[in-house]
Amino acid sequence: MKSRKEGSRIFIRLETGDDVLKSLAEVAARYGVSGGWFNGIGSASDVELGYYDLERRDYDRVRIERDVEIASASGSLGLVEGKPFVHLHAVVSDRQCVPRAGHLFRAVAAATVEFVLLLAEAPIERTRDEATGLNLWRV
Amino acid sequence: MKSRKEGSRIFIRLETGDDVLKSLAEVAARYGVSGGWFNGIGSASDVELGYYDLERRDYDRVRIERDVEIASASGSLGLVEGKPFVHLHAVVSDRQCVPRAGHLFRAVAAATVEFVLLLAEAPIERTRDEATGLNLWRV
Amino acid sequence: MKSRKEGSRIFIRLETGDDVLKSLAEVAARYGVSGGWFNGIGSASDVELGYYDLERRDYDRVRIERDVEIASASGSLGLVEGKPFVHLHAVVSDRQCVPRAGHLFRAVAAATVEFVLLLAEAPIERTRDEATGLNLWRV
Repeated sequence: MKSRKEGSRIFIRLETGDDVLKSLAEVAARYGVSGGWFNGIGSASDVELGYYDLERRDYDRVRIERDVEIASASGSLGLVEGKPFVHLHAVVSDRQCVPRAGHLFRAVAAATVEFVLLLAEAPIERTRDEATGLNLWRV
Repeated sequence: MKSRKEGSRIFIRLETGDDVLKSLAEVAARYGVSGGWFNGIGSASDVELGYYDLERRDYDRVRIERDVEIASASGSLGLVEGKPFVHLHAVVSDRQCVPRAGHLFRAVAAATVEFVLLLAEAPIERTRDEATGLNLWRV
Repeated sequence: MKSRKEGSRIFIRLETGDDVLKSLAEVAARYGVSGGWFNGIGSASDVELGYYDLERRDYDRVRIERDVEIASASGSLGLVEGKPFVHLHAVVSDRQCVPRAGHLFRAVAAATVEFVLLLAEAPIERTRDEATGLNLWRV
């Protein structure tokens, strides 16, 4: 994983085999930041997407077996129990350019993954919300 | 709706029941800004998407009956007739992670919606263009 | 093509008939910048998407015959052999709001296309990587 910080922006490239969510959290830890916004693209294997069922308070999960393009990945950087936490949603697409989309549980960088991280000046906590059963981004 | 302005960035979280487009316009009004760029994710109900038919100069509209994940929402902040105007396109996905996408006419925040707004220093007017029948973003 | 630079951000609007990738590279050349991050939306004709086959080291390509909405376009600005190079992935959607997605090879602006470009302070080179067969973004 490669990164370059310029003021309040970090430009990032993940390398083949990098776990996307873990690597982005590692970038945040490396620079000591825990609030911000991500946008990225690339290609990935081992993708798992999710849909949050608000009534059941749990996710339906969809595993994508084949390698995909990451057509879009966006989301927030927050702080959960003192550690950087990455919350991404993604659109991924197959060989026929047919997409699937949702909450991103897991992706491993294939050929390449490129991201920008726009930093907040202070940490943004994510804490439990009883009404939804989720950790919410406390901006 | 919660928001935190840091320099030329505003971090935003919408709460269950918030109208997405109205709430983002309210954030702009609250800080007195009317030019910029949005990127967001989350979950929503009552979504209506559109496709602009340039020949007919009107939108085809698609209502999404079920709650969806907002896998991606991006677009611009402009000024129409003196008021902040939010122009978003979105990709939303269902329980099977199957997406629909297009111009976003309407969405109501479900569990949570997170956005960043990158500000322009001056308003960006949106005014009528006769050739397309649309209000264009006059950067 | 219209553009407005404010500090380290460039707000961009493409006009009907503009080639999206060429126009964005022209914006970069006009301001003398060759590192950064794009996010955009709009509508387009003549769209060609791709899926990179890492084993074959080549793209599968999908032509979209009809006009589409650009629901999301994101990616990087880099420098290839001394010239600005635009690497975008996109999600596009048809009249029924059904999307296709992938690497963006080509798109021509239809009614309108809006982008923001977030600048790096220095050029970001894209150079050949033997393992993947791709030019990688050397952040």
